[in-house]
Amino acid sequence: MESTGKSSNVARGATRLGIIGGGQLAKMTALSALQLGCDVIVLERKPDSPAARLATHSIVGDWNDPAKLLELATQVDVVSIENEFLDTKALAILESSGHKLFPRTATLSLIQDKFIQKKTLAKAGLPVPPFAAVANQIELLKQAAKFGWPLVLKTRRNGYDGKGNFTLRSEADIPRAWETLGGGRNELYVEAFCPFERELAIIITRSADGRVAEYPVAETVQRDHICHLVTAPANISPEIAKRAAEKGRHAIEAIGGIGSFGVEMFLTVNGEILVNELAPRVHNSGHYTIEACVCSQFENHARAVLGWPLGSTEMCAPAAAMVNLLGATDGPGDPLGLDNALAVAGAHVHIYGKAHSARGRKMGHVTALGITAAEAIATAERAAQKIMFGKP
Amino acid sequence: MESTGKSSNVARGATRLGIIGGGQLAKMTALSALQLGCDVIVLERKPDSPAARLATHSIVGDWNDPAKLLELATQVDVVSIENEFLDTKALAILESSGHKLFPRTATLSLIQDKFIQKKTLAKAGLPVPPFAAVANQIELLKQAAKFGWPLVLKTRRNGYDGKGNFTLRSEADIPRAWETLGGGRNELYVEAFCPFERELAIIITRSADGRVAEYPVAETVQRDHICHLVTAPANISPEIAKRAAEKGRHAIEAIGGIGSFGVEMFLTVNGEILVNELAPRVHNSGHYTIEACVCSQFENHARAVLGWPLGSTEMCAPAAAMVNLLGATDGPGDPLGLDNALAVAGAHVHIYGKAHSARGRKMGHVTALGITAAEAIATAERAAQKIMFGKP
Repeated sequence: MESTGKSSNVARGATRLGIIGGGQLAKMTALSALQLGCDVIVLERKPDSPAARLATHSIVGDWNDPAKLLELATQVDVVSIENEFLDTKALAILESSGHKLFPRTATLSLIQDKFIQKKTLAKAGLPVPPFAAVANQIELLKQAAKFGWPLVLKTRRNGYDGKGNFTLRSEADIPRAWETLGGGRNELYVEAFCPFERELAIIITRSADGRVAEYPVAETVQRDHICHLVTAPANISPEIAKRAAEKGRHAIEAIGGIGSFGVEMFLTVNGEILVNELAPRVHNSGHYTIEACVCSQFENHARAVLGWPLGSTEMCAPAAAMVNLLGATDGPGDPLGLDNALAVAGAHVHIYGKAHSARGRKMGHVTALGITAAEAIATAERAAQKIMFGKP
Repeated sequence: MESTGKSSNVARGATRLGIIGGGQLAKMTALSALQLGCDVIVLERKPDSPAARLATHSIVGDWNDPAKLLELATQVDVVSIENEFLDTKALAILESSGHKLFPRTATLSLIQDKFIQKKTLAKAGLPVPPFAAVANQIELLKQAAKFGWPLVLKTRRNGYDGKGNFTLRSEADIPRAWETLGGGRNELYVEAFCPFERELAIIITRSADGRVAEYPVAETVQRDHICHLVTAPANISPEIAKRAAEKGRHAIEAIGGIGSFGVEMFLTVNGEILVNELAPRVHNSGHYTIEACVCSQFENHARAVLGWPLGSTEMCAPAAAMVNLLGATDGPGDPLGLDNALAVAGAHVHIYGKAHSARGRKMGHVTALGITAAEAIATAERAAQKIMFGKP
């Protein structure tokens, strides 16, 4: 059976949101859209995805199959996405057939290839670390002479959570880096290593008519290249926060973004803000907004793509912290220790409902609010430490 | 097709919550359970119910059909309910077959028949308005002589939102009241009219091991016997709030309740608190807890019936207000004016996704937080007034 679901349940006249992808980002977007009375239809490759389990209807099929994309689009008012790893050529059939797709393929095309993304940002006058495309190991060596060591070699496409990145300390690392990232097969580019003081991130929601909602600037802490902790607001001066928010907004305007977007930034020791990377979708650094802001990044994404007014991004508490729950090992997708985590007062536990755990896979998260960041972090960490995915 | 759904999507090992009923209370409970990683399976008579649209799987069938109840129970870890109009004799098959049902039929049996409910409360030492069963119009007249006018004649079963109630001003009203409520066919009872100063309500969540979470005491305002506005906390002295919370807790302990319960109370001009009515389920007077409390009545209901620790009922803001969105006329279930309501900053709009509107039918609600109750009420009312269900 290719298509599972409950099409008979789609209420006549309800606004219908389609989402390509069925992971946790689609799930949390769906929860917001369902609260607003929408029907949600999800297209995902497997039937047991987190979002398909609560979608009004779900279609099982390949994201890049034009027939499946059209099957989704004809059942909804607007199609959106939960990841950037889509074939824009396949997606373009939706726009050419008159369906609404937000963000647009034009936006996705400027983001998917990180080299083009960087060029777009630089062209818009946004500060980015020095970067260059490299077609072979000799070109990489030449860029090293310009940028100095260390260097970060990256795949132009499909990288995430540190996958597709290699930090080179010296010329001796070049062959291994090149081989690891599949140079020759994969298009690569190189960036100067940015000795940042903090990593900042902001969620920007932009609607089709150009209205923009800016969330507080958050600080992100990575562990093994995967986001571990997000605190909001970031512990930075109001002046730096203002500049960071301006750059985030500027970046999303530069790509004509419609919906919620994550903007990752570096704050350097000199107080300079560099734009590191954009995500054309709701973002892990904005999960805290579910409890901490009047209107979450997910609800605002739904509002933006459906053409509705944006909600307030104001925080409901002085501080918020979000800790990711990662899989410890391969194993079942349901958590061990959930009851102990729920006993931590003030911890908001989110379990994504993935069928399987894998080492480092994002399986859930915990958010806590507090009078201070330290208080929020302590609560969120205390609950997060009680939960385990996979076998210990 | 009797059963629609996505059973193939049920992740192995996920905790599974079954809900008898697919309305807005089931929907909001499901949203909380889904966030916690549960699968949710709903049993409802029609396929297009609000909760079936987001349930992991839904069963279409009669609530009181033992075969359907067992079909639900065998697919889940715990069965709960969203309304009190169930046949406890049919439900009992779940308990006798070893399935977990919360609240238990013993609790439901003490609540369903309002005369028995009142007797149970009185026996537990809780203050209730004077009441008596009446088998005929003569008995009603005799009670009037004891209680004085006005009097409220009520059906013992299946009343809600003012349906099943008749207020009598004098002896002349008796025949019409008796006929209107189907006296003879329906069992009736009579209550002294309670000249209350305010109507109060509290949500109490109780777990199987007797732990109790008490929400703030809220004030409810009815229009045409239907809840129009809820504000929390109620504008009453701490001493009265303490007594009201104690009575709420006492009432739920008296019926051995497991899950979230609504307790409606009258505050008389003398400062006396009378228990008016219990609901063996999440309750309209607790919808504000979704945004206003750390853990909502819905999440705490799921936690309680699944045997997990209860969450904090603390408020995140000084005041909250909730306004119901009622159908204006028969018509489609999707709202008019939603975009205008979403433009009201700080308004949290909930649309239930019912297939059809009817006059007075609960179609959604709006919650707002504020520094003062007046501020919260103003925001919620402003947004609510922009939304219309049915044809104007």
